[in-house]
Amino acid sequence: MKVLTFGEIMLRLSTGEGERLIRAGSLQMNYGGAEANVAVSLAHFGHAVHYVSKIPAHPIGEAVKHHLRSHGVSTDLILQGGDRLGTYYLESGVGERSAKVIYDRKYSSFSHLSTGEIDWDHALDGGCLLHVSGITLALSEELRTITLQALQKAKERGITTSFDFNYRASLWSQREASLAYKPLLPYVDIAFFGELDALHLLGLERKDPALPREERLLQYYKEMEREYPNIRHMASTFRDVKSSTVNDLQGNYYVHGMLHQSKLHHIDPIVDRVGGGDAFAAGILHGILKGNDPDVIAAFATGASALKHTVRGDSSLFTEEEVRQFIDSGSGTIVR
Amino acid sequence: MKVLTFGEIMLRLSTGEGERLIRAGSLQMNYGGAEANVAVSLAHFGHAVHYVSKIPAHPIGEAVKHHLRSHGVSTDLILQGGDRLGTYYLESGVGERSAKVIYDRKYSSFSHLSTGEIDWDHALDGGCLLHVSGITLALSEELRTITLQALQKAKERGITTSFDFNYRASLWSQREASLAYKPLLPYVDIAFFGELDALHLLGLERKDPALPREERLLQYYKEMEREYPNIRHMASTFRDVKSSTVNDLQGNYYVHGMLHQSKLHHIDPIVDRVGGGDAFAAGILHGILKGNDPDVIAAFATGASALKHTVRGDSSLFTEEEVRQFIDSGSGTIVR
Amino acid sequence: MKVLTFGEIMLRLSTGEGERLIRAGSLQMNYGGAEANVAVSLAHFGHAVHYVSKIPAHPIGEAVKHHLRSHGVSTDLILQGGDRLGTYYLESGVGERSAKVIYDRKYSSFSHLSTGEIDWDHALDGGCLLHVSGITLALSEELRTITLQALQKAKERGITTSFDFNYRASLWSQREASLAYKPLLPYVDIAFFGELDALHLLGLERKDPALPREERLLQYYKEMEREYPNIRHMASTFRDVKSSTVNDLQGNYYVHGMLHQSKLHHIDPIVDRVGGGDAFAAGILHGILKGNDPDVIAAFATGASALKHTVRGDSSLFTEEEVRQFIDSGSGTIVR
Amino acid sequence: MKVLTFGEIMLRLSTGEGERLIRAGSLQMNYGGAEANVAVSLAHFGHAVHYVSKIPAHPIGEAVKHHLRSHGVSTDLILQGGDRLGTYYLESGVGERSAKVIYDRKYSSFSHLSTGEIDWDHALDGGCLLHVSGITLALSEELRTITLQALQKAKERGITTSFDFNYRASLWSQREASLAYKPLLPYVDIAFFGELDALHLLGLERKDPALPREERLLQYYKEMEREYPNIRHMASTFRDVKSSTVNDLQGNYYVHGMLHQSKLHHIDPIVDRVGGGDAFAAGILHGILKGNDPDVIAAFATGASALKHTVRGDSSLFTEEEVRQFIDSGSGTIVR
Amino acid sequence: MKVLTFGEIMLRLSTGEGERLIRAGSLQMNYGGAEANVAVSLAHFGHAVHYVSKIPAHPIGEAVKHHLRSHGVSTDLILQGGDRLGTYYLESGVGERSAKVIYDRKYSSFSHLSTGEIDWDHALDGGCLLHVSGITLALSEELRTITLQALQKAKERGITTSFDFNYRASLWSQREASLAYKPLLPYVDIAFFGELDALHLLGLERKDPALPREERLLQYYKEMEREYPNIRHMASTFRDVKSSTVNDLQGNYYVHGMLHQSKLHHIDPIVDRVGGGDAFAAGILHGILKGNDPDVIAAFATGASALKHTVRGDSSLFTEEEVRQFIDSGSGTIVR
Amino acid sequence: MKVLTFGEIMLRLSTGEGERLIRAGSLQMNYGGAEANVAVSLAHFGHAVHYVSKIPAHPIGEAVKHHLRSHGVSTDLILQGGDRLGTYYLESGVGERSAKVIYDRKYSSFSHLSTGEIDWDHALDGGCLLHVSGITLALSEELRTITLQALQKAKERGITTSFDFNYRASLWSQREASLAYKPLLPYVDIAFFGELDALHLLGLERKDPALPREERLLQYYKEMEREYPNIRHMASTFRDVKSSTVNDLQGNYYVHGMLHQSKLHHIDPIVDRVGGGDAFAAGILHGILKGNDPDVIAAFATGASALKHTVRGDSSLFTEEEVRQFIDSGSGTIVR
Repeated sequence: MKVLTFGEIMLRLSTGEGERLIRAGSLQMNYGGAEANVAVSLAHFGHAVHYVSKIPAHPIGEAVKHHLRSHGVSTDLILQGGDRLGTYYLESGVGERSAKVIYDRKYSSFSHLSTGEIDWDHALDGGCLLHVSGITLALSEELRTITLQALQKAKERGITTSFDFNYRASLWSQREASLAYKPLLPYVDIAFFGELDALHLLGLERKDPALPREERLLQYYKEMEREYPNIRHMASTFRDVKSSTVNDLQGNYYVHGMLHQSKLHHIDPIVDRVGGGDAFAAGILHGILKGNDPDVIAAFATGASALKHTVRGDSSLFTEEEVRQFIDSGSGTIVR
Repeated sequence: MKVLTFGEIMLRLSTGEGERLIRAGSLQMNYGGAEANVAVSLAHFGHAVHYVSKIPAHPIGEAVKHHLRSHGVSTDLILQGGDRLGTYYLESGVGERSAKVIYDRKYSSFSHLSTGEIDWDHALDGGCLLHVSGITLALSEELRTITLQALQKAKERGITTSFDFNYRASLWSQREASLAYKPLLPYVDIAFFGELDALHLLGLERKDPALPREERLLQYYKEMEREYPNIRHMASTFRDVKSSTVNDLQGNYYVHGMLHQSKLHHIDPIVDRVGGGDAFAAGILHGILKGNDPDVIAAFATGASALKHTVRGDSSLFTEEEVRQFIDSGSGTIVR
Repeated sequence: MKVLTFGEIMLRLSTGEGERLIRAGSLQMNYGGAEANVAVSLAHFGHAVHYVSKIPAHPIGEAVKHHLRSHGVSTDLILQGGDRLGTYYLESGVGERSAKVIYDRKYSSFSHLSTGEIDWDHALDGGCLLHVSGITLALSEELRTITLQALQKAKERGITTSFDFNYRASLWSQREASLAYKPLLPYVDIAFFGELDALHLLGLERKDPALPREERLLQYYKEMEREYPNIRHMASTFRDVKSSTVNDLQGNYYVHGMLHQSKLHHIDPIVDRVGGGDAFAAGILHGILKGNDPDVIAAFATGASALKHTVRGDSSLFTEEEVRQFIDSGSGTIVR
Repeated sequence: MKVLTFGEIMLRLSTGEGERLIRAGSLQMNYGGAEANVAVSLAHFGHAVHYVSKIPAHPIGEAVKHHLRSHGVSTDLILQGGDRLGTYYLESGVGERSAKVIYDRKYSSFSHLSTGEIDWDHALDGGCLLHVSGITLALSEELRTITLQALQKAKERGITTSFDFNYRASLWSQREASLAYKPLLPYVDIAFFGELDALHLLGLERKDPALPREERLLQYYKEMEREYPNIRHMASTFRDVKSSTVNDLQGNYYVHGMLHQSKLHHIDPIVDRVGGGDAFAAGILHGILKGNDPDVIAAFATGASALKHTVRGDSSLFTEEEVRQFIDSGSGTIVR
Repeated sequence: MKVLTFGEIMLRLSTGEGERLIRAGSLQMNYGGAEANVAVSLAHFGHAVHYVSKIPAHPIGEAVKHHLRSHGVSTDLILQGGDRLGTYYLESGVGERSAKVIYDRKYSSFSHLSTGEIDWDHALDGGCLLHVSGITLALSEELRTITLQALQKAKERGITTSFDFNYRASLWSQREASLAYKPLLPYVDIAFFGELDALHLLGLERKDPALPREERLLQYYKEMEREYPNIRHMASTFRDVKSSTVNDLQGNYYVHGMLHQSKLHHIDPIVDRVGGGDAFAAGILHGILKGNDPDVIAAFATGASALKHTVRGDSSLFTEEEVRQFIDSGSGTIVR
Repeated sequence: MKVLTFGEIMLRLSTGEGERLIRAGSLQMNYGGAEANVAVSLAHFGHAVHYVSKIPAHPIGEAVKHHLRSHGVSTDLILQGGDRLGTYYLESGVGERSAKVIYDRKYSSFSHLSTGEIDWDHALDGGCLLHVSGITLALSEELRTITLQALQKAKERGITTSFDFNYRASLWSQREASLAYKPLLPYVDIAFFGELDALHLLGLERKDPALPREERLLQYYKEMEREYPNIRHMASTFRDVKSSTVNDLQGNYYVHGMLHQSKLHHIDPIVDRVGGGDAFAAGILHGILKGNDPDVIAAFATGASALKHTVRGDSSLFTEEEVRQFIDSGSGTIVR
């Protein structure tokens, strides 16, 4: 059964630790984007994943396909054409100093995608899951229409749909995002969002701040389910940013009116945080596809995300087996 | 006395020798552009050089300034703003395999430059030389107007003007270029162009192919001087491309009705060919500014260009003294 | 239609240029083997290629799959198990100094392959071409049986079969090889071998050394076709080893009683010679699969091989389009 | 208005993390020295900075100029001549293991500087600030005279003077330093020193150790101001060295009888500690030059120093804006 | 007086931090093995060390000798021959993620060593110490015999013998190890083992878990001394694995019925943990050879081990003087 | 039998190919010096070599010992003390551009060596060969005395003595060198010098330039032998410098009145030329020590030198066996 993710993939050019862009003489290349990262993780977990996107028809575009294929993601549904691949520069953070992202993603092939270019009937044929995210909605009016159509057509076919809010303040305002997200929600089965999204994008009523954060999250999720009964699965992480190098991470997965929490992962040091949220989303989707126990799902997804933080690049490279071993075994001994 | 060059500077991202973009994991960063490269060379030759351009107001833009300043080029006349820095990917060639350039320069801050943004009166104040090139003309209608104004204002102030044809087939047709170049020529003192430019851009009559190439070149130059008596200096190189690794290079400098040729440089191996023509142009301009003997000028410019081929990056890093030593001394002994 | 290649893939660990193994602090990793290299090339030429082999079930084995998938080769038919991946160390040569290979390939998972482990009926189903090589025959008695069965079953299904002699003196004697090769020849459609193979492995009569080498080769090929009328296609290259850095290469392709020769490629410098023969074989196979004109086939295969010498790693990474451009265009100009 | 710093700049050759000099195969190159580092920081903060020094007239000397110019520091006042550039080797520390410095700075061009070589009248012309440090005094008797003259001439012109004690036990004894420092103090407006300097170099009376350290520091500073009323600004940091990788840092700035403290920065991990004190000094000088509020000055200087610890090399590369954002924003989130 | 260690040395191929084997493009090379690491440490501590082993007679074998000689270890007693050098791949761990070792050590020259190949009479001549470990016993029946003979012959000559239990679960079961270890123990003077070894390999009775761990260890050691009065020295470390990046380490040295403990080292970050135990063993052996005070021995050995964690590679590179300075001085200041 | 070489070893810091010192961010480290290079080569050829020198007593000095020991050279006779290790920077040349050496060797521990520091009686005990060179003579008056004493004492003991002229124009004038060399010549058995040395340092009469160069060399050598009958062996190379990348090399060895020439090696490309002459000298000395046939000696020494040009670093790393294979086998085939 085929899993699909739809979105933009970008070239990431990043400095080494402790290097500034202003003095860099070389840059590490990676390819990533929220939905592509989810695709790669799901492929490593053993699913037949197809990535739907548009990239330019030149060697940098070919490199994207090379990257996806190496991880076992099918590139058959990728269109080629347009001007350029969205790019971003990442100056890695360390300790108190934050990482810095400089976007050079305007005018990309994907952002210029037109309605009708993607043959969703063909793409969705034989699918079991479609995953999209809010970043795509920010890129153009047309992409909002395309995403809506994709979700609608998926639902017509009984395909499970997944939507990660992924709000990016650098791309649009909360108000714009809110308007764009709402029409999609009736077609979504699985949603990834947290308290800030609930307040600012969904306009839910603020819960009592004296309550523990998991209590508040549960209330938001219940309220959401009341409003959109189609959204049966909700998930998000609590991330305590101690510094660029140290984060605490805990995952939450809501289903059937209950919130399931993972243990708290103390991530120190962080090798590369980018893609950590996508690894979590992939872990949740994997568990739902496999029909796992909700507690196992929360633990697995958060473990997958924690592992992602220990490798360079946007993509998590861990198999289901490796994530499971990571969760089961104690931390930090040598595996011989 | 201040020397000015005006044009676009780009970020160059290149693979290592024998690496393909499709598999590259890191890229070398360099900053270059025809006019910026001329600026850097002239600064190393001891001139007070100011570079006029527009770059984005973010860290990659700052890196451009860092680069130029390190070579002693003043960045005071650079505007900051706009969307992005033009970028290109270079897959280096080797032996029979050609280098491959993938441009990602559309929508750059420079290409969106508007008439009036640059205060030419201020910029040209105190100047002695202004150097521009045909690449800029290809980028927008507006840039054609801006370049024309700059040349006109320079001539009004008695500033020497220099124009490198630098025709790029990937940017426009010969016909478009021809139409764009002609209005500028009456305001040019020094022009860099060769036989192909003479035929296809200037529409000069084809000379007898049985003649030696230097004979033909001399005839084109004489004809050109008759038509545009203001163009007193003309120069170009003969480049025999044996392979990506081996080129023969010979420089030609025309003044007062005579062609002055350098010796033939056998460049083997080529470390990095990009910027070789700009190093030649800078060498010619340096000689003219210093009032050197025409034969010395031709030898110096070609030596500077040959040296450029032996270093990585767009910029030549050699002082006047080093170029002179290179020309005088035998080739390849260790200098202790 | 599915193309299959069968053989051993190894981890190659190589030093940088000018470095000796004795002092190396790091090694470049590549994965390659004659048949895997052919698979990768054919995938880049647009074929649906499946690689049949056996590799260990640990992360180094996974890395092999990652490598093959990135190039678009299917890994579905690869078995996993056994002790180890064959490995070899390559100390790269330069100029007069030869490259040095240190094999550490004994006891590999592939060399311990047993008859019956591969389900050839399943593997060959839907196939149009099967390519094997003489290296496999050298590894074990059992592998000789397996290869023979594969060729027989392929012929039963009307699948075109290809055999590259690939004699390796470090693995066995000419006499042993000769005995092993002969039983296979009746099941081969396409054979890759040259004059030395004809003399020492096939025992053909030595031709007049005063004849030009292409004349002699034609005679060997004709004689071979008389003995084995099933072998309709024969091919090999003339390689003049000037040094580790400079080789001249010319390709020969025999079909219908005629020898078709490519132009002579002067390869200078050689970035990485390993896999050059495999790129040639892939080029021939591609041409036969496409039904191209014999002269075009010879030119294409030799061009593909020459290009391979300009990139690091065992695998050629060039598309059909890129090889064609390389053959058509002059050498060494920048493609912008 | 021109800012001047005077001192020695050295080539620093350092190993990678976890590497020992005894086995190193390559070394990172940086250029730095207390006063040059202050110059670079001030240039990044937007000041017109001129560095006064002496370096050899060969390519390593040119590299120094290249380095300084890239950061926008003027090299016009640098003399060239003498035997060599002072050099030091840095074996980076990690965790419990200390970094190790091996000086190879004897016989340097700067340390052989003679009275009269520098034309202080010319150098100081148009200046607003002169910064020197105690390291220079340790290098030769002559340099003590030169530094004293510079400070005197600066005061004659009404230029603000700054002196960083920078005592180095490897260069001389506390007693020697004490004798050398005292004659300069009457010509100093801004002094950088801490409790140990107060006790061992200035001979101030030890304060009650039961007092909090900031209390003690305030008493030393007040006592100092009583003795040298010209020294209106004093500053230093409290550095708690947890390990080579973790330090706590808090800055103190004294003016008008009051001590202003920054918040405590927990620096984990330290990328490169060298130059941390110079970034602090530059931050204080910047605040004084801008006439900022004392609390803002303390916070800014300490933030600038903390940031320096997160980048490789002696030089801080942060703009005023970046330091301010760092102080204002929470720690460790990604800035998109 | 000559010190001997006997065992297998392997090639270690490891990824960089944050890299996975599946995507690695290059690997760091190191050579190490428990007994070789002890040899290197002892050589840096000033002893005349001879390493006894067998390695292949090809360049990778030569590289082993190059490595050992560089550290001052004599290679005169190393045999050359056999098929291959044992190899292992190390995917370095970080934070919660464990390091992963993939052994490719089967069929090595050392593991095929036959009784009689080593001339122990010659090797042991003039020796004062022989160190072996339990890893060797796991490799073959024959190596158990060889090790036993070596220990017996050493005792006949009055040479001090040392045995590190070094149990590796990936090589054999506890039961197998137990049977192999026991015959050797009567010939051992110094033994390295901890509580788990005491329970599972020696079958000692479990002590009250409510006791502090040092109490329990003391009881095991006393019981052991009662059973094997020849074993006068016993040692081991307590290692608290917080994560792959952070460990606490404390050393224990038992002699004359008393346990001597080092201070607790907080190792953060760990650069490379491999060889940490060997550095500890070498430190104990050094102290015994020098006749140092037991407390000094415990502190020195643990300090040597902690230092090892701060450098890349299996080998500790610190002199006796450096270890002593490390123990004496505070942590993390710059040594100028 | 022990072989001794005496001289200065330096740290070499070099840029990568195509990099200039002015922009270098890292430098490759090597250790070398004429006599140390000879020592390393002779150790690889199987001799028991002791290097006599003086280096500083700090980690860079230790690194020198680490380097020498790794190649099997004994460091027992090296003194430690003094200020610094001589250093030089090497900007590698390429094609027409020459390599550039910047010496920073003044004030080195070796150059400050005093008479009596080296105990020559101890050092020479058991020796069979002593090799020195003219570079040492250039460093100080005292070193001239020390070298003379060493040669005299060697001759007293019947030790064979070798002297490489190694004239360096950057260190002294031909006239100074000439005066320094002459007193040593009566104590020399083997001398390395060529035509220019014969003319300018020995003052021999210029031979007819119309004669082939080998004829002229033979005449110089014969004349030399007449004047200094003790000098029975003379050798040198003809080096035709086509460029920094391409040299032709032919070796000459004179003994018993006859000149023995090697074949001409065409070295293309040169990886690293430094140490090429020392590898030749070592080859000659090896042949003399082994009592080989003069033609074999000339071929071996020149082959060793040609091989040296193909590896990075000052030291040749080839065994006697490898040099022999190189001479025997054809050039550039892969050795599997």
